[in-house]
Amino acid sequence: MSSTLGTLFKITTFGESHCKGVGVVIDGCPAGMELCETDIQHQLDRRRPGQSELTTPRDEKDQVSILSGTERGRTLGTPIALLVANRDQRPGDYAEMSQVPRPSHADYTYQMKYGIRASSGGGRSSARETIGRVAAGAIAEKYLRETWGVEIVAWVSAIGIIDAPACDMAAINRKEVDASPVRCPDRAAAEQMEQAILAARDGKDSLGGIITCVCRNVPVGLGEPVFDKLEARLAQAMLSLPATKGFDIGSGFSGTRLAGSRHNDPFVQKGQRLGTATNYSGGVQGGISNGEPIYFRVAFKPTATIGQVQKTVDFAGREVELETKGRHDPCVVPRAVPIVETMAALVLADLALIQKMRA
Amino acid sequence: MSSTLGTLFKITTFGESHCKGVGVVIDGCPAGMELCETDIQHQLDRRRPGQSELTTPRDEKDQVSILSGTERGRTLGTPIALLVANRDQRPGDYAEMSQVPRPSHADYTYQMKYGIRASSGGGRSSARETIGRVAAGAIAEKYLRETWGVEIVAWVSAIGIIDAPACDMAAINRKEVDASPVRCPDRAAAEQMEQAILAARDGKDSLGGIITCVCRNVPVGLGEPVFDKLEARLAQAMLSLPATKGFDIGSGFSGTRLAGSRHNDPFVQKGQRLGTATNYSGGVQGGISNGEPIYFRVAFKPTATIGQVQKTVDFAGREVELETKGRHDPCVVPRAVPIVETMAALVLADLALIQKMRA
Amino acid sequence: MSSTLGTLFKITTFGESHCKGVGVVIDGCPAGMELCETDIQHQLDRRRPGQSELTTPRDEKDQVSILSGTERGRTLGTPIALLVANRDQRPGDYAEMSQVPRPSHADYTYQMKYGIRASSGGGRSSARETIGRVAAGAIAEKYLRETWGVEIVAWVSAIGIIDAPACDMAAINRKEVDASPVRCPDRAAAEQMEQAILAARDGKDSLGGIITCVCRNVPVGLGEPVFDKLEARLAQAMLSLPATKGFDIGSGFSGTRLAGSRHNDPFVQKGQRLGTATNYSGGVQGGISNGEPIYFRVAFKPTATIGQVQKTVDFAGREVELETKGRHDPCVVPRAVPIVETMAALVLADLALIQKMRA
Amino acid sequence: MSSTLGTLFKITTFGESHCKGVGVVIDGCPAGMELCETDIQHQLDRRRPGQSELTTPRDEKDQVSILSGTERGRTLGTPIALLVANRDQRPGDYAEMSQVPRPSHADYTYQMKYGIRASSGGGRSSARETIGRVAAGAIAEKYLRETWGVEIVAWVSAIGIIDAPACDMAAINRKEVDASPVRCPDRAAAEQMEQAILAARDGKDSLGGIITCVCRNVPVGLGEPVFDKLEARLAQAMLSLPATKGFDIGSGFSGTRLAGSRHNDPFVQKGQRLGTATNYSGGVQGGISNGEPIYFRVAFKPTATIGQVQKTVDFAGREVELETKGRHDPCVVPRAVPIVETMAALVLADLALIQKMRA
Repeated sequence: MSSTLGTLFKITTFGESHCKGVGVVIDGCPAGMELCETDIQHQLDRRRPGQSELTTPRDEKDQVSILSGTERGRTLGTPIALLVANRDQRPGDYAEMSQVPRPSHADYTYQMKYGIRASSGGGRSSARETIGRVAAGAIAEKYLRETWGVEIVAWVSAIGIIDAPACDMAAINRKEVDASPVRCPDRAAAEQMEQAILAARDGKDSLGGIITCVCRNVPVGLGEPVFDKLEARLAQAMLSLPATKGFDIGSGFSGTRLAGSRHNDPFVQKGQRLGTATNYSGGVQGGISNGEPIYFRVAFKPTATIGQVQKTVDFAGREVELETKGRHDPCVVPRAVPIVETMAALVLADLALIQKMRA
Repeated sequence: MSSTLGTLFKITTFGESHCKGVGVVIDGCPAGMELCETDIQHQLDRRRPGQSELTTPRDEKDQVSILSGTERGRTLGTPIALLVANRDQRPGDYAEMSQVPRPSHADYTYQMKYGIRASSGGGRSSARETIGRVAAGAIAEKYLRETWGVEIVAWVSAIGIIDAPACDMAAINRKEVDASPVRCPDRAAAEQMEQAILAARDGKDSLGGIITCVCRNVPVGLGEPVFDKLEARLAQAMLSLPATKGFDIGSGFSGTRLAGSRHNDPFVQKGQRLGTATNYSGGVQGGISNGEPIYFRVAFKPTATIGQVQKTVDFAGREVELETKGRHDPCVVPRAVPIVETMAALVLADLALIQKMRA
Repeated sequence: MSSTLGTLFKITTFGESHCKGVGVVIDGCPAGMELCETDIQHQLDRRRPGQSELTTPRDEKDQVSILSGTERGRTLGTPIALLVANRDQRPGDYAEMSQVPRPSHADYTYQMKYGIRASSGGGRSSARETIGRVAAGAIAEKYLRETWGVEIVAWVSAIGIIDAPACDMAAINRKEVDASPVRCPDRAAAEQMEQAILAARDGKDSLGGIITCVCRNVPVGLGEPVFDKLEARLAQAMLSLPATKGFDIGSGFSGTRLAGSRHNDPFVQKGQRLGTATNYSGGVQGGISNGEPIYFRVAFKPTATIGQVQKTVDFAGREVELETKGRHDPCVVPRAVPIVETMAALVLADLALIQKMRA
Repeated sequence: MSSTLGTLFKITTFGESHCKGVGVVIDGCPAGMELCETDIQHQLDRRRPGQSELTTPRDEKDQVSILSGTERGRTLGTPIALLVANRDQRPGDYAEMSQVPRPSHADYTYQMKYGIRASSGGGRSSARETIGRVAAGAIAEKYLRETWGVEIVAWVSAIGIIDAPACDMAAINRKEVDASPVRCPDRAAAEQMEQAILAARDGKDSLGGIITCVCRNVPVGLGEPVFDKLEARLAQAMLSLPATKGFDIGSGFSGTRLAGSRHNDPFVQKGQRLGTATNYSGGVQGGISNGEPIYFRVAFKPTATIGQVQKTVDFAGREVELETKGRHDPCVVPRAVPIVETMAALVLADLALIQKMRA
C-alpha cells in the first residue's frame, strides 16, 4: 500500500534491498520529451553507495534500464518503467537480526504490521528503496528544467553538531556542492564534518544532520489549497524518506521567534513581476508558490544501524546484546542530497501539471 | 482542487470567510457510532474566536449542524455533512485590500493562480477554513477514543521567544492545557506568553509560536510505507494548516545533533508487548507506529495581518503604505491547539481504517 | 466511502432521502466562470418528482442554494457547496419495511454491510441521492458548453417492450425531448410508452427502459489510457446510477454481430480535421475521443418498489406478504434523462481538465 | 496517466507492444500469502497468442518473473513487481502504418492526444498491454479463492451471429470452458463459432462476440455506494479492456423489458443466510453484493486490424487504400476470456479489502 505518489505526474516504486531489483513506474510524464538512460543515471550515481570512504562499502553500480514508455529516445506519454537490478546481494549478512529487532529500525514495526518481513537489509525501509524515486525524480527535474528553467540544488548544512553557515541560495550549484565528499559547500565546515564522520565510523557509531534545498525559477501559482498546499506536499515527500525527522520551510522554526512586523515580506516590483524584498515565506504564500526561491530544511536522524554492541531485547522479550555486522553508512546525509532534490522535483512536476489545467 | 484529505476516512471541506457557511463532508466514518452535534461542538468552541482578550473580537458562535449521515443519533456509514453558518459577515472591512496584496498573505498568489479571489478575509486561506476540519476531527477523535482509547493532547510550547519547559507527555490532559487562555500548561511561561501577546496586540504587531502534540494509546502498525508513512501524513496534515512553517517528530531537528549510539531506542519488555526504553523515535519506526507515544511539534509563523503601517506595493507595482483595519488575532497559536489535535485525529483514523484491511 | 468522483473536476455528494438535505461539494471547477443558482436549477427541475402524472406524487421543490465558492456571481476556484433542503419528509410511510427487506432493493445489502440503515426511503440508494449529482453536472455542462460548445442530449429510447426508432443524433435537442412527458422524441412511441406507464401504475407495477445519450462537439483527445478510457469512465458513471443494469457505446452489443470489414469506420477529411465516414466506434477509439459524436445507451431495470403484494421473507427468514405503501414512480426512466446527461458532463469535464495539462 | 487501478489492492501496468517488456506493480496485496511464478503463469498461458490456429501466429512465451515483493515463496506486503519480456519484436511489420491511421484503431487518437505514438503494434492500446493485468489478476484471484472460496469463470457466449444457449452458471468450470479452442462450453455452438472464425481468417476479416462471466461465493457486502458500486467498478474495469463496447449485469438490457413484479427477486432462506429465489439482480443490490452469484456480459467488437484492403485517408487527408500486413487475431474473444476473469478478480479483491475496514 501507498507506494504511489502524485496526482498527474504519478510514480509507483517497488523493490526491496535484496530481491531481483528495485524500480519505478512513472505515469503521466508529458509525451515528446527527449529521454535516455544517461539522463537518469547521473543522479543515481550521486546517490549510490561506494562513492567515497564516507559511505557503505556495499558497491552497487545501480545501472538503470528503461523498460517502457520511450521510443527512439522520446517519451510516448505512456508509463515509463525503470529497473535497477540488485547485483551485490548477501542476505546471510543479516541472518543474526531475524530474532532481534534492531533498535530504532523498522524490523519490529514491519513484523507487527505484516506478520512477516524481509529477512535482510530493511526491506522497503532500506535506503535502497529510494533508487526508484531518484530515477523518477531525474525525469521530473528534466521536465521542470526544460519547461521553466527550474533549478533545484540541495546541500548538507549540518552534520551532528557541526553547522555550515548559510550559503548563497541565489547562486549555489551542484558542482560546488559535490566539490566535497560530504556535499557541504562551506569548505571549512565540510572538512570538520568529514572528520566527524570518519570518527563516527571508527567508533562504530553514526551521525545525523540537516539538508537544505533551494528551488529557483519555480513559476508562480503552484500548490493546491487546502490539503495539497505546496509546503504540505513537500513536507509529506520529505518525511517519506527513510531517517527523516523534520521539515521546515522559509523561516521555519526560527521564524516563530520573530514579530510579524519583522517577519512579513513586503512586496516590491521585480522586472515584470511583483516580488518580495525579503523571503521569510520561503517562496510560498497561502500554499502557493509566489515566484521567489523556495527553500526548506530536512532533518535526518543518525543512522540506526551501528556497529556498537547494543543492549536490547529479542522478539520474545529476552535481554540480548546485539552486534550488527552488515555494511552500512556511518552517515547517510551526504548521499541523501540528490534524494531530497528528487522529492522536490517530483512534487513540483505534479503541481505544475495540475496548474496547467488552469492555463 | 484538493479540498479532500484521506483514503478511507475521507474529508472534503468547503467555505470561505464571508460566504453563507463553512463545512465538511466526511465519507467513510464507520456506521453505528453514536453521534450528535454536541460531540462536535466542544472542539469548535475551543477553536472559535472571541474566547478571550487574546483573540480576534470577531464573534462567531460557530454552531454546527449535522445535515446528513446520521439517524436517531447514530452514524449510518453514509457521508456526514456538517455546516456552520457564517453570521458575522462584514466584507466592507476588507475593501482597502483589493488593490494591495497584503505582505506574507495569500492575496497575491490566489490572484495569480485563479485570476480572481474572494474580496475579503482571505477566502480559503483564512483560518475560518479550519472549521470544517475541526468538526470532522472531532468525529475522527471520537472513533479513535472509543475503539482504542487513543488520547490526543496538544499545547502551546513556545510563543515568540518564550519557551515552555517540556511538560509530562505521559500525563498531560486538555483540562490542564485549557487552564490558561494561552493554552500553555507551564504556568510561569503561560503568564509571560500572555503578557507578550497583549504587548504585541497593543503594538499592532503579532507573534508566532510552537505547538507540541502527543498521541497516546495508538495501536501498533499504523502508517503505510513508503509515501504514506505515519510521519509523512502527519507532516502533510500539519503543513496544510494556515501559517505553519515547520514540523518535526520525536527528537526532530535537535535529534540530528546526537550520535546514533545515544539516539537509538533500545527495546524492553512492557507488559505483554515490546516497548522502548527511550522514545527519540517519537512513536514511529519505518513510518509505522510502534505503540509508544507519538509526539511532534508544529511551527506557526507570526500572523501576517498586522495593524502597523507597512511599506509595500500594490498590484500595479506602485509603492503604498498599507494600514490594515480588519479584526484579527495578535497570535493564532492558542486557538490552533484544537486544530493540531484535529489533524492528528484525521490522519490516525484514516491509517487505522487502512490497517484494518490486514486484520 | 466513495461518494467522491473525479480527479480534477471532483464532486462529493451527501444526503439521504429523509435527512435535513442533500447536496454536493464540487472541487476543481475553474475560476472566473459566471454562476448563479438559476444555472443549476433548470436541470434539477427536469429531475424532480411531481412533474407529471407519470411520476411519484412526492412533491419536492428542490430549490438549490450555493453555500460557497462564488462571489458576485463568479466562481472563485474554491470548492462550490450546493444544498437542497429536504422538505417533504414522511419517515412513517416506510415503517413497515424495517423488518422486511424489499425485494430487489438495497435494504438487505445495506443492513448487512453497515449493520444499520436509514429507516426509510432507501437512504443513499434512493434516487434522491442523484440531486447532488445533477446540481454538479449542471456546472460541468456549463463549463463544457462555454469552453468548447459541447452539447449533451439524452432521451428515452425504450420503455418496457416499446422501442423508439433511432432519432437524428446530429440534430436532436432538449426541447424536442421534453415535448413529451415520457421524454421520447418519437411521438408515436412516446404515446404508447405513456399508456404503458399509466397501465403499470394502475396495476401497482413498474417498468424499466433504455436511455440513449449523445455528446456533440467534444474535443479530440479526452480519455486516459488505460484504466480511465473515456468509455470506461462513462460506464462507471452510468452504472453508479440507481437501477441501472447495462451500458454500451457506439455499436455496442449489436456491433458484436458485424464483421470487422463492415464495422470499421474509415477516415475521411471533414473540414480542417479528420473524421470518420461511419461512427460505429461511438466517438471513441482506444479510449480517447476522436471528435465524432459520442453516443451510448444505459439500461434501467423496472423500479423495485411496487405496490403489489410480494411473497418474500423478513430478516429472520419468516415468510411474509409485503405490501409497500410509500410514494414511488411506476417508471423512473423519464426522470433519469437529465441524470444521464449529468453523469456524461461530469466525466467529460474531468477528462477535459486532465487533457489540458498536455496543452 | 491512469495506468493505476484500485484503492487498496492497487495495480499499475506498463509496457508497449514492442518495448523491452510489459508488466505490473501490485501494491496492497496482503502479506504472508504463498506466491510463486507458477501461480501467475497459468492465466498468462491461457491469454497468450499462438495457442491454436484461431489466434495470431505471433508466438510469445510470456514467461513472468517476480522482481520484488516476495521472499521464500511468500508475499511480504510490499509492492509485487512482475515483468514479462517482449521477445518477438518486429517493428518493421508495421512501418506502412506510420502515415495512415488504421480505421477504428487508436492510431489517430493517440497521435492527436500525445503528438507522438509508438511506431508499431498499437502501443498501449494493444492487447499486449493486458499481460500486466492478467498477471496481477492471478494474484487477486488466488487471494479471493483462498480467503472466501471465490470462483470466477468466464466463457464465450457469442461469436458474431452465433449465440450459445445459457450454460449452467452454478456449475460451470474452466476445464469445461477450455475444452474447446473457442472457449465456449456449448459444444454445438463452439463448433460453429470455430468455423466462423476460420472463415473470417480466410476472408482476411474479423469477428466480435460476447463473454459472460460468473463469480460465485462472493461474500455479502462488497461495493461502495455511490460511485464505487460493485457494478460501476466492474463496468469501468471491463470497458477499460481493448475492443470492448458494452457491459451489462444480471438481467441487463433484456431485463428492461420485464415488469417489476416479474423482475423482482423475492428473498428466501438459504441455509444460514437470506438468498433470493431468482437472480435478475445479478448478485448485486444497491451496488453491494448480496451473496448470490454475480454474472455479467461484456461485448467485444470485431478486431479493427483486418487484412482486407480498406479505403480511408492518411494523416494529411489524402485518400489511400490501406492493406495491413502484421500478425493479428481474426477474433480476440477466446483469448479475452481470462482477461475478463482477471478484471473481475481485481475489482473484487479491492472491494473486499475496503470492506474489511468494517470488520
